[in-house]
Amino acid sequence: MRNLTLLTDLYQLTMGYGYFREGKHEQEAVFDVFFRPNKLITYSVASGTEQVADYLQSLRFTEDDVSYLRSLGLFSEEYLTYLLRLRFTGDVYSVRDGEIVFPYEPIVTVKAPMIQAQIIETALLTFLNHQTLIASKAAKICAAAEGNVMEFGLRRAQGADAGIYGARAAIIGGCTSTSNVYAGKAFGVPVAGTMAHSWVMNFPDEESAFRAYAESFPENCLLLVDTYDTLSSGVPNAIKIFKELRARGYEPKGIRLDSGDLAYLSKKAREMLDEAGFEGAIICASGDLDEGSIRSLKNQGAKIDLWGVGTKLITSADMPALGGVYKLAAVYEDGKEIPKIKLSNTTEKITNPAFKDVYRIYDKNTDKAIADLVVLFGEEIDEKQPLVLFHPIETWKRMTITDFRVRKLREQLFSRGERLVKARPIKEHAEYFKKEYARFWEEYTRLDVPHIYKVDLSESLYRLKAQMVDQYRKGE
Amino acid sequence: MRNLTLLTDLYQLTMGYGYFREGKHEQEAVFDVFFRPNKLITYSVASGTEQVADYLQSLRFTEDDVSYLRSLGLFSEEYLTYLLRLRFTGDVYSVRDGEIVFPYEPIVTVKAPMIQAQIIETALLTFLNHQTLIASKAAKICAAAEGNVMEFGLRRAQGADAGIYGARAAIIGGCTSTSNVYAGKAFGVPVAGTMAHSWVMNFPDEESAFRAYAESFPENCLLLVDTYDTLSSGVPNAIKIFKELRARGYEPKGIRLDSGDLAYLSKKAREMLDEAGFEGAIICASGDLDEGSIRSLKNQGAKIDLWGVGTKLITSADMPALGGVYKLAAVYEDGKEIPKIKLSNTTEKITNPAFKDVYRIYDKNTDKAIADLVVLFGEEIDEKQPLVLFHPIETWKRMTITDFRVRKLREQLFSRGERLVKARPIKEHAEYFKKEYARFWEEYTRLDVPHIYKVDLSESLYRLKAQMVDQYRKGE
Repeated sequence: MRNLTLLTDLYQLTMGYGYFREGKHEQEAVFDVFFRPNKLITYSVASGTEQVADYLQSLRFTEDDVSYLRSLGLFSEEYLTYLLRLRFTGDVYSVRDGEIVFPYEPIVTVKAPMIQAQIIETALLTFLNHQTLIASKAAKICAAAEGNVMEFGLRRAQGADAGIYGARAAIIGGCTSTSNVYAGKAFGVPVAGTMAHSWVMNFPDEESAFRAYAESFPENCLLLVDTYDTLSSGVPNAIKIFKELRARGYEPKGIRLDSGDLAYLSKKAREMLDEAGFEGAIICASGDLDEGSIRSLKNQGAKIDLWGVGTKLITSADMPALGGVYKLAAVYEDGKEIPKIKLSNTTEKITNPAFKDVYRIYDKNTDKAIADLVVLFGEEIDEKQPLVLFHPIETWKRMTITDFRVRKLREQLFSRGERLVKARPIKEHAEYFKKEYARFWEEYTRLDVPHIYKVDLSESLYRLKAQMVDQYRKGE
Repeated sequence: MRNLTLLTDLYQLTMGYGYFREGKHEQEAVFDVFFRPNKLITYSVASGTEQVADYLQSLRFTEDDVSYLRSLGLFSEEYLTYLLRLRFTGDVYSVRDGEIVFPYEPIVTVKAPMIQAQIIETALLTFLNHQTLIASKAAKICAAAEGNVMEFGLRRAQGADAGIYGARAAIIGGCTSTSNVYAGKAFGVPVAGTMAHSWVMNFPDEESAFRAYAESFPENCLLLVDTYDTLSSGVPNAIKIFKELRARGYEPKGIRLDSGDLAYLSKKAREMLDEAGFEGAIICASGDLDEGSIRSLKNQGAKIDLWGVGTKLITSADMPALGGVYKLAAVYEDGKEIPKIKLSNTTEKITNPAFKDVYRIYDKNTDKAIADLVVLFGEEIDEKQPLVLFHPIETWKRMTITDFRVRKLREQLFSRGERLVKARPIKEHAEYFKKEYARFWEEYTRLDVPHIYKVDLSESLYRLKAQMVDQYRKGE
């Protein structure tokens, strides 16, 4: 594993130095990772928490790192020696990969000595922002496709990691395979792929290119039919080869369309394949697809069984950054928690103070999610008592619920620097997401103008926040 | 260095297997990397070629990789043994990092045994697409800022590599520093950063937070002034601390604004700083900036000396993928070149056949670039003869030039698998880009509706292409 300890912003190390000089560096602090709403976010699918755990476990500045930091001329030798010995010794509470998450709720909370909590901020945000973004985009695309989606984007990914971890996130979000062999090996996910146009161009004609491929992969024969002309050349040649294959005792897999009017071409190709007796041959389509174009193709009656999605998935093209933030929520003085709040003229931007936890509330009768509730850490919810939920800003919007069940949304990932939860097989994450997704009313997950899922504050947290805002205003 | 040999699409390996079985795998082939135009592309700044070279040098499937490939059940043992011994043995012609490049011209050409040329396609595109994208975005942003731009985007980057190589690309495109410590160490680029809001929130009040920071960094005191209220609290507190600093014999560096109306706040803050005698203190601004908002702020007379640009730079938010492609241009049979062409109903999508080279033509009198000319490999241009340039599609658009000088745009990076050009210090790339940029008329590089820089074909290449298109059409 690469040592990514230096994957941080310089200001984490300058602040760390400041705290070190002030003797405040080991003061315990609580930071929350959360993200703010955005018109393109309906629900999000958490991903990246396992990379966070790997990173925290291996956090250590090497001699080489420290030599580099020395060369900057900013830090004292005492501080550099301190960094050399620094390990992560804090607690982390985190949702698991595959968890459905919403704006404003702390998906990860770090409780650690201030200097550690600062140094790790950047990498945590990098991993969580990126992978949650891609898993969420994949979920939308897979919802639109209502079926098999292959992740094909590596060549357009923003670097190797974007391709590798992006493929992983895409699988968590619902893709069934990836073209990325590195990710296939690293995460044990199915890999997929057959041929490019260059294969076809590299034979005297399309027919012989197809025949050669069928000879190498008789059991996995999916032919790319748009190199020359899809309907006059590609599909007829494919059918010819499929007949030869069948004569040898193999059933063809199908064809792939990578350009042109996919709705029209797929319908025509379907007819031609059916007519030739290849009703079982699938039609795979690729080329600049995303949830919008897939839905449009389906509305047009396109006969596409399998979707290959590249650029727009692997870069989350319409929203290429999630914008998750990491905000100070509390510090400890003499073992006592001092909640912290960041004020703003924009009400939504005022942070939620204190060390917190998050519950998801389900209706006992339908098993559907009702709301998430952010509470003070340690606050218990009595399932036997009616629970009043209210909007955290428009507090007159209230409802009382009974017959509910609660679940803690996060698990403790680290205790005093020790990792408590091992990496799970990626398949488990994908299945977990699928199951949890089924527990949400469609109104919350649909692509167009979804209902806003409620993320409310407990009465105690709400009161603390209101009091702190008041206090500050009086101080002005 | 990580072994990224598996960073490829599965279809490269299935095609490789097909070629292997056909005995065509070691047939020499020529592939070009180029990208197509897009309304957001004016000029581009090549980046990523050094990572390409590192990757090609270390290309080798490990035993572990081969075991994984075996587990897929797709390939024969002979093929797997072959892969285990495979190394890159080809030739590569490539522009250098920092070169200004345009749509349609081959920025990298690979001449290698077919199987190698296929396997490396994906990684080459990943590195070149990503880094060229970010270097080009940085160039636009730096052009708008007409001055110092710091790259601040790591936390919103699409994974670690996107942050690391993105920072490198941003420096090549003109940024003067990065917040990314890992990139600072890896590439020797200046790092920058001071404090976050959490620093200020973690002291009883803003004034003591500023004072503590000034004590730790008296020579590098840049204070973040927007945690509470920029003009009523942040700037006055900063001025107070600056006076204390000056009394101790240090000049303050300045302040940073990270939210609010940056035009208004910077003008007011400038007045306050000047009035207090801190004319030398700079104003740094950050917060969702890109070339558009920077230009708008400058038009509004904002008093900003230094720009911190994050999300929109590191993700190239308005165009998060470059879309470079890798197309077969020729194969060799018995040592004879057979040019290859990919046809399309869209004229612009028809590829340029044959093994090619690229010249840049400069006006001898002004030293400004006139056009790039794609030629058949080995074609020489006689600077003493008038040269006719013509549009490759609208061929009636012609001009004859004299008094020109030509330069080969690419260098030979690999010869028979041996790397010929070592990595250069990143500073050289950044300086190279700056110098070359000065050789372009502003009409080509401006942000709004720039002139389209000419990328033409030589007479011989044009004739070959026309003849191949004709031939195909007759064959229909």
